[in-house]
Amino acid sequence: MPTPPVALVMGSQSDWSTLKRSADILKELGIAYQSKIISAHRTPDRLWNFGTSAETQGFKVIIAGAGGAAHLPGMLASKTRLPIIGVPIQTQTLSGIDSLYSIVQMPRGYPVATMAIGETGAVNAALMAASILATFDTTVAETLSAWRTELSNSIPEHPIDS
Amino acid sequence: MPTPPVALVMGSQSDWSTLKRSADILKELGIAYQSKIISAHRTPDRLWNFGTSAETQGFKVIIAGAGGAAHLPGMLASKTRLPIIGVPIQTQTLSGIDSLYSIVQMPRGYPVATMAIGETGAVNAALMAASILATFDTTVAETLSAWRTELSNSIPEHPIDS
Amino acid sequence: MPTPPVALVMGSQSDWSTLKRSADILKELGIAYQSKIISAHRTPDRLWNFGTSAETQGFKVIIAGAGGAAHLPGMLASKTRLPIIGVPIQTQTLSGIDSLYSIVQMPRGYPVATMAIGETGAVNAALMAASILATFDTTVAETLSAWRTELSNSIPEHPIDS
Amino acid sequence: MPTPPVALVMGSQSDWSTLKRSADILKELGIAYQSKIISAHRTPDRLWNFGTSAETQGFKVIIAGAGGAAHLPGMLASKTRLPIIGVPIQTQTLSGIDSLYSIVQMPRGYPVATMAIGETGAVNAALMAASILATFDTTVAETLSAWRTELSNSIPEHPIDS
Amino acid sequence: MPTPPVALVMGSQSDWSTLKRSADILKELGIAYQSKIISAHRTPDRLWNFGTSAETQGFKVIIAGAGGAAHLPGMLASKTRLPIIGVPIQTQTLSGIDSLYSIVQMPRGYPVATMAIGETGAVNAALMAASILATFDTTVAETLSAWRTELSNSIPEHPIDS
Amino acid sequence: MPTPPVALVMGSQSDWSTLKRSADILKELGIAYQSKIISAHRTPDRLWNFGTSAETQGFKVIIAGAGGAAHLPGMLASKTRLPIIGVPIQTQTLSGIDSLYSIVQMPRGYPVATMAIGETGAVNAALMAASILATFDTTVAETLSAWRTELSNSIPEHPIDS
Amino acid sequence: MPTPPVALVMGSQSDWSTLKRSADILKELGIAYQSKIISAHRTPDRLWNFGTSAETQGFKVIIAGAGGAAHLPGMLASKTRLPIIGVPIQTQTLSGIDSLYSIVQMPRGYPVATMAIGETGAVNAALMAASILATFDTTVAETLSAWRTELSNSIPEHPIDS
Amino acid sequence: MPTPPVALVMGSQSDWSTLKRSADILKELGIAYQSKIISAHRTPDRLWNFGTSAETQGFKVIIAGAGGAAHLPGMLASKTRLPIIGVPIQTQTLSGIDSLYSIVQMPRGYPVATMAIGETGAVNAALMAASILATFDTTVAETLSAWRTELSNSIPEHPIDS
Repeated sequence: MPTPPVALVMGSQSDWSTLKRSADILKELGIAYQSKIISAHRTPDRLWNFGTSAETQGFKVIIAGAGGAAHLPGMLASKTRLPIIGVPIQTQTLSGIDSLYSIVQMPRGYPVATMAIGETGAVNAALMAASILATFDTTVAETLSAWRTELSNSIPEHPIDS
Repeated sequence: MPTPPVALVMGSQSDWSTLKRSADILKELGIAYQSKIISAHRTPDRLWNFGTSAETQGFKVIIAGAGGAAHLPGMLASKTRLPIIGVPIQTQTLSGIDSLYSIVQMPRGYPVATMAIGETGAVNAALMAASILATFDTTVAETLSAWRTELSNSIPEHPIDS
Repeated sequence: MPTPPVALVMGSQSDWSTLKRSADILKELGIAYQSKIISAHRTPDRLWNFGTSAETQGFKVIIAGAGGAAHLPGMLASKTRLPIIGVPIQTQTLSGIDSLYSIVQMPRGYPVATMAIGETGAVNAALMAASILATFDTTVAETLSAWRTELSNSIPEHPIDS
Repeated sequence: MPTPPVALVMGSQSDWSTLKRSADILKELGIAYQSKIISAHRTPDRLWNFGTSAETQGFKVIIAGAGGAAHLPGMLASKTRLPIIGVPIQTQTLSGIDSLYSIVQMPRGYPVATMAIGETGAVNAALMAASILATFDTTVAETLSAWRTELSNSIPEHPIDS
Repeated sequence: MPTPPVALVMGSQSDWSTLKRSADILKELGIAYQSKIISAHRTPDRLWNFGTSAETQGFKVIIAGAGGAAHLPGMLASKTRLPIIGVPIQTQTLSGIDSLYSIVQMPRGYPVATMAIGETGAVNAALMAASILATFDTTVAETLSAWRTELSNSIPEHPIDS
Repeated sequence: MPTPPVALVMGSQSDWSTLKRSADILKELGIAYQSKIISAHRTPDRLWNFGTSAETQGFKVIIAGAGGAAHLPGMLASKTRLPIIGVPIQTQTLSGIDSLYSIVQMPRGYPVATMAIGETGAVNAALMAASILATFDTTVAETLSAWRTELSNSIPEHPIDS
Repeated sequence: MPTPPVALVMGSQSDWSTLKRSADILKELGIAYQSKIISAHRTPDRLWNFGTSAETQGFKVIIAGAGGAAHLPGMLASKTRLPIIGVPIQTQTLSGIDSLYSIVQMPRGYPVATMAIGETGAVNAALMAASILATFDTTVAETLSAWRTELSNSIPEHPIDS
Repeated sequence: MPTPPVALVMGSQSDWSTLKRSADILKELGIAYQSKIISAHRTPDRLWNFGTSAETQGFKVIIAGAGGAAHLPGMLASKTRLPIIGVPIQTQTLSGIDSLYSIVQMPRGYPVATMAIGETGAVNAALMAASILATFDTTVAETLSAWRTELSNSIPEHPIDS
């Protein structure tokens, strides 16, 4: 089985409740992905191995979600030149501001494409991955454009009392 | 002259002092770009026209910098399926937190790949653009990898008193 | 049927639970309004068309509510010289601070009259619209003054244990 | 001499360095104004008298700037049904976040049309005042539209190295 | 009946759920008080009358609670030289940070003795009032000292599993 | 020489540049004070001794300024029933937000009357001390009222271009 | 019975729901501890006595949890040269930001080893205590290393839908 | 030459201006150290090698300073059971709040002993290292106690006008 274009990695099982929104969108768009748990702190060697081999394995884009002192996206950015899309997980005490700052404020040389905090960010991470793949894959480009048109067309003109 | 792969847009002339860091890196990496001033609020029609035509013009990636109620990156994300990389410009009163929130907290459907606030973000926007182009352009991939290796090799082992 | 003086626009159906507080007050004050869903990102052309035609259609004031990277009020301010009143919707992760900054920190040239975050802001947006209409409509002026007097008179002198 | 349509009030002489940006724009737009120092805390009776009489004096809109625990705009909103436009002055310790929250978070019944923090907010307060006057004064409406067109036309297409 | 030493004022009935903690402590300490609803915005004349007459009525200390753009404590500080103790009410959107900044950041000349946000602040406002009265009333001084000793003695040495 | 009514304590010599604003106002009001350096962390025994003896020494009110993890005002509140007025010193990294939270968020039982951050807070601490002394000292009451009247009368009606 | 190496102190019984996470980990690691309630404000003398005698009693490390204006860890750091590990308790109004700043922003000379806010911080405080004891106690070093290995090995490779 | 007990690592040469405060204090205390530049992102392999070997090399404590998305201290905590002391470097845009959150909010299992932001934190990191070494090294214990006594004795009783 060939390597899918997207790797969907997260720091822990508990992050899956957020990141499965990415998976749902990737499925809608017909983009294959592989999901993995890679904890920057608990499984640093797994992080190292994945970061070192991701490009040669054939991945094209990596979506990485993490919360709190969220080091996973940034450490992957250090290990591979593949585009890293970061999803700041919402946290109990700081509501994800800690995750956001830990992901977006990367130093010179190692960007992480940071998304909104929480589930909205997870949805958008999949769409950002699609927009990157669409730069060279016309099927993805067409699917993404159709998805966007459908979203746009779904908006009613007036609000409805519920 | 063919359309370069990267469009580098900003809300005003004053943003250029930040965004020229993107231009510098793109030049270092040998990636052609076109720089434009597009103000979401002062030139909305220019924004509309550019957003509508960017894909067909042949651009592959858009870097967009804006400050304060920074609407430029997000409105471009609304108008084109091309990947948008957003640079939050540092502001005088809120230090760029306003720019960051206005760019990163995009709703479901319209991601902006948000970078760090200020010049570091501008540098990284260029590198993120390169990593996206590298998904289909092996020359960029090699140049980017070499740039990263050089940066990595430039770090001395011990700090020096100055 | 003539165009009512107030347009009440919002980014999504879910914003209606906040914005209907504006509608309630407008009804109390006998001010006609039209409510619309206009998503800056999902329906940019609807935004463009409405912004371009709002003045000639005969609207006098626009109330616009949006959350997160809230671009709707500011983009309308770009397209029309009518007064725009912005309501920052409370958000799950950042409690509406993101909405507030995205609406209030508008650049030179394009003000948005920003209200408090959430339902209080929605109520006050309607009253601000009334105070604007009252500058030339004595009926509204009298109704607004009476509404304010009634509110003022409704306050008991001492708190009651509940 | 007739009462001008705009009152431009501020908490102290030191706020004038910010609020004169409002005065500059009002002059550009040919809108007459009266500037006053009214300190909510140091001159509460002056605030009371002005708030009580502003409407009958003939003012149409009030721009009020204040910093820190900025009570002036909100207390005026309590005393008059005229539209109040609030300008949060930038402060030394909290950069104007204190001013912003004290002005924007008004309770049900007493809106203040809040602008951006600092000089940008002062410029925009004048434009918001103009957009309100334009609802019934076609001269102001035309001047404001022309001012906006000129601003829009002044934006160059490309950034210039300085 | 003589004027009690403490006035306990609040912006609305809903603030009573917080401020009754002040009342409870004042009762524990045997200090008489009068509770009043005075809304800075809805009943400004009531505020004016109370602020002007509080000293001559015989009040010694004023506890004032308010939320959001909390102007009540500061406006009272403008109208009377009596010590004002401010209680920032917790708010739904900003958790009371708005109340805190609106109360504590008073300008030169008009201090408000600001307490912690919410119920803890209400309890402490009563104790601060007692400590002020204790400067000239030995009965209060002794009762307050005894209350403090009792609190101090009530702390067990070890935590108990529950 | 009798104990003056006000103790003016601070955590370090560097805090004096802020706290001397308190001293200036106390002198203007003719209120005697004693200034001391008491570091909660560097001189805990000095804190203990002062806190234990302040009441019996004859002090009536304590002004305490501290920055960062500002423990001095709160620890004094633990040791004496005298009213403690806290001044949060502005800090280099967090601008005094750290000082403010460390002082104002005191637990049930031990209030600190918190002032604005920085020099304004230092000025107001002296005025708050005066308002407390004025509850039993008619000379202070009259001087304070006169000081307030003078401040109020010093405000010009119109801003002056500088 | 000999003094255990770790003292686990907290400001109140209510902090125990957080701090018992520290106790749980210490038990897992076979490290003896003594738990105490020491309120900086309610039992200052208990704080003094414990701070003065902790080293001579034989304690090696102190874990101290507190919330709000959290003075306990810092005041202990003032009284003993033993390493103090601080746990900021999550608070209702400010979510523990107040606790964090009051603990981490200690002045020159008196460090507190600050952990994450809330239960995660309590768990990590125990592990930090273990890592300190491990510098001289090979049994603890081996147990800690084994605990870390077990945690690392417990991470599955892929997320599981729940 | 034997391995010194303290490793002093930082993400870049520019961090040295902060971290040399740690070095100064270690020298004052007679504690040997080795300083290294280890960038989590630019030199990840150097980080890996150091983290893996630090314990066997003979280091006892690690001081790690980093700014922005500060991953160095936390990644070292992942690789070694030695105590890690983290110094959040002050940053230009977010003043070190980003550094603080990235360091202190570590997940369960991998504590970093976080110090104050900036130079004060660097000084205190050295003292925390000393307090850890003092748990088994009586010379360090005595030197540290003497240093603390000297600091305590250096505080004058009264502030001096400058």
